[in-house]
Amino acid sequence: MLPYHSRSKEELSGERTRLTAVFAGHKAKGLSLNMARGKPSAEQLELSLPMLDLLGSGSDCRAEDGADCRNYGELTGIVDAKKLFGEYLGVGQDQVIVVGSSSLTFMNDCMARAMLAGVLGSTRPWVREEQVKFLCPVPGYDRHFAICQFMGIEMINIPTSSEGPDMDLVESLVANDPLIKGIWCVPKYSNPLGTSYSDRTMRRLAGMKTAAGDFRIFCDNAYAMHEVYRDVPVLDPIAACAEAGNPDRAYVFGSTNKITFPGAGVGFFASSKENIAFTTKQIAMQAISWDKLNMLRHVRFFKSVAGIRSLMARHAAILRPKFDAVLQAMEAGLSGLDCGEWVKPDGGYFVTFFAKPGCAKRIIALCKEAGVTMTEAGATYPYGKDPEDSCIRIAPSFPRLEELKLAMEIFCDAVKLATVEKLQSA
Amino acid sequence: MLPYHSRSKEELSGERTRLTAVFAGHKAKGLSLNMARGKPSAEQLELSLPMLDLLGSGSDCRAEDGADCRNYGELTGIVDAKKLFGEYLGVGQDQVIVVGSSSLTFMNDCMARAMLAGVLGSTRPWVREEQVKFLCPVPGYDRHFAICQFMGIEMINIPTSSEGPDMDLVESLVANDPLIKGIWCVPKYSNPLGTSYSDRTMRRLAGMKTAAGDFRIFCDNAYAMHEVYRDVPVLDPIAACAEAGNPDRAYVFGSTNKITFPGAGVGFFASSKENIAFTTKQIAMQAISWDKLNMLRHVRFFKSVAGIRSLMARHAAILRPKFDAVLQAMEAGLSGLDCGEWVKPDGGYFVTFFAKPGCAKRIIALCKEAGVTMTEAGATYPYGKDPEDSCIRIAPSFPRLEELKLAMEIFCDAVKLATVEKLQSA
Repeated sequence: MLPYHSRSKEELSGERTRLTAVFAGHKAKGLSLNMARGKPSAEQLELSLPMLDLLGSGSDCRAEDGADCRNYGELTGIVDAKKLFGEYLGVGQDQVIVVGSSSLTFMNDCMARAMLAGVLGSTRPWVREEQVKFLCPVPGYDRHFAICQFMGIEMINIPTSSEGPDMDLVESLVANDPLIKGIWCVPKYSNPLGTSYSDRTMRRLAGMKTAAGDFRIFCDNAYAMHEVYRDVPVLDPIAACAEAGNPDRAYVFGSTNKITFPGAGVGFFASSKENIAFTTKQIAMQAISWDKLNMLRHVRFFKSVAGIRSLMARHAAILRPKFDAVLQAMEAGLSGLDCGEWVKPDGGYFVTFFAKPGCAKRIIALCKEAGVTMTEAGATYPYGKDPEDSCIRIAPSFPRLEELKLAMEIFCDAVKLATVEKLQSA
Repeated sequence: MLPYHSRSKEELSGERTRLTAVFAGHKAKGLSLNMARGKPSAEQLELSLPMLDLLGSGSDCRAEDGADCRNYGELTGIVDAKKLFGEYLGVGQDQVIVVGSSSLTFMNDCMARAMLAGVLGSTRPWVREEQVKFLCPVPGYDRHFAICQFMGIEMINIPTSSEGPDMDLVESLVANDPLIKGIWCVPKYSNPLGTSYSDRTMRRLAGMKTAAGDFRIFCDNAYAMHEVYRDVPVLDPIAACAEAGNPDRAYVFGSTNKITFPGAGVGFFASSKENIAFTTKQIAMQAISWDKLNMLRHVRFFKSVAGIRSLMARHAAILRPKFDAVLQAMEAGLSGLDCGEWVKPDGGYFVTFFAKPGCAKRIIALCKEAGVTMTEAGATYPYGKDPEDSCIRIAPSFPRLEELKLAMEIFCDAVKLATVEKLQSA
């Protein structure tokens, strides 16, 4: 295949005519396919259905210490769940709070509390600073950025490599600007790249000098055991920060939303004992207790971290053919054309495609015309602005395999057409 | 019985000796009784156990419009739940958002969002005002006040009568101070008084002129169907505000925490369509969706508002003898002594006792010495400061009837002893 950039005007024109006709065919099919959100498929959800049978009217609804899960109490979660999800995150039960169904909601909560009252060690609420800033490794997760934008926190893009965020840049920024209060991180199978932070990156994050005394790593460990192709051990940020002498630097969030049921899972928060004590005191005004019956259901379903791991292997077995289909479609449809690059993830929920600069929006618009919904261009960047208009997040999990193959065929044709159009207009 | 204030020094001294001996007897029993929190009893929780059988691995987990309750989606809640809880609160399904298990958490959320970004019609986030203030009818609910205190919102006490807050005072304050952004209200079976706002009060709240253009009534409708002795119809604040030409003034919160399972219930939020649209947009950064399986469980359990009402009648049948016991104990033990007054509630979860000024803390300390835990003195006032040191909130729901009778005997003896001590020191 001759790369598009090496083709003549006439060749490009012919290719455009051909692709436009192909696209007319796609549109005529009246499809409605969705690769926008990292949403588990029905087949994945069925893996956890037996969990719904574990608590009935005849069940003992007491936690292992006797706490009645049907009533108020146990603000930080039942001890059984704190043990299990603490171990899942690699911390002790005194370093975890088990909350409601959404870890995102609790991230937002933690940020709101930091803004309105400060974190442990703050000299004043963050809103009383001239302008709070956060570092945002890109591409990243749109909801993290939405939280900052909502609260008026200025976001600074940090480029990401296969080792994680550009640490030279991160270190130089945080060393000099006390208004930079934190950084968003998805250290394992990051959203959307599916790659993980190296030990070196994690140690630099944990040990770097920060001008802000109350700097926090908001570490969304959404994919702790969400391997697709390769298990990648990642350093525990809490332990790394403790070792580096910054024990209160890391906030770690996780949930079972992509393990059991999205929306009806269990969320949790881990940090240093001091941060947990501080946070427990802060949250006492906003909750009496979260859903302990759902915690109990989860604990009885998993039994142990090994139980979570074995469930995740079954998820991976369902996801892998879908990831394969996405990667093979790009390999087959785009190789050699020089119309973009893609990242083979180790795990997580996404495949990332980097189109030629200035092509992402057009590709997604073309997909939409043909009935294929993709994550909006720019969504993986703060303020929805991808400076290169290049990054596209593909979510293979939800569609059925046949649908996915069809959607990817359309996607590849959209990539080619957009690239040709761009070259013609150059 | 001769009132204490009419007794001679010698009589008081004799009474004190007698009561001190009685108290020594109480202490010797080594009791551990709790009348502190509005926590349903095990018997009440058992009423809702059949709900746990309604969703199993073989169940259809779809909402009435087909939405899969096991997956992400439906940020504002499933349509079945919006219809049911909308009707429960007296609004249409387009005026309600069904959220996580705790309405308190969502109240805190709404306040945090108002502080950080403003409400519909705000010219700037509330934190950008010189000093946000909230009106707090007293006695009231400690968690409401804790939310304000946490966020640095100045609280202003508003005395309450049997008709609700002192509206002359409320009107004069809000008309002149644009920094007063709202008022906390529990209009039906208020916490702790158990009395309700009159129609006149509600209409004045809805129609009053406020210097702040973005004034909000934070209306915690925690006890909408929680009658104990008497059903009291209360005007719907949302309709009242709409009629008065202030359609966006009322935020209404509710939950099933005192209907099904505390902590594992369903919370909801109702307001004008415009506020719902505004809030839906705001919360999209903090959640993908809340627990729809639990919504479905609730909807299938209740079937209709009539189903909720019939369950609440069964709760009332369990609660009534306990409230009777509290009221009869005070009637029998304290009548005629002039050592305080109590309010007979129509519904809700509490009985309020007003001790002689300066006696509440001492009464609660005496109870504690004898093994009876009461809500802390001052808890029903902003900043935990009851200016009269008089108000005591009694929660009869949790203890068994026999325990409650014993606890109330001790309570009445504590009231008498504290009153005698106070008179002696005067």
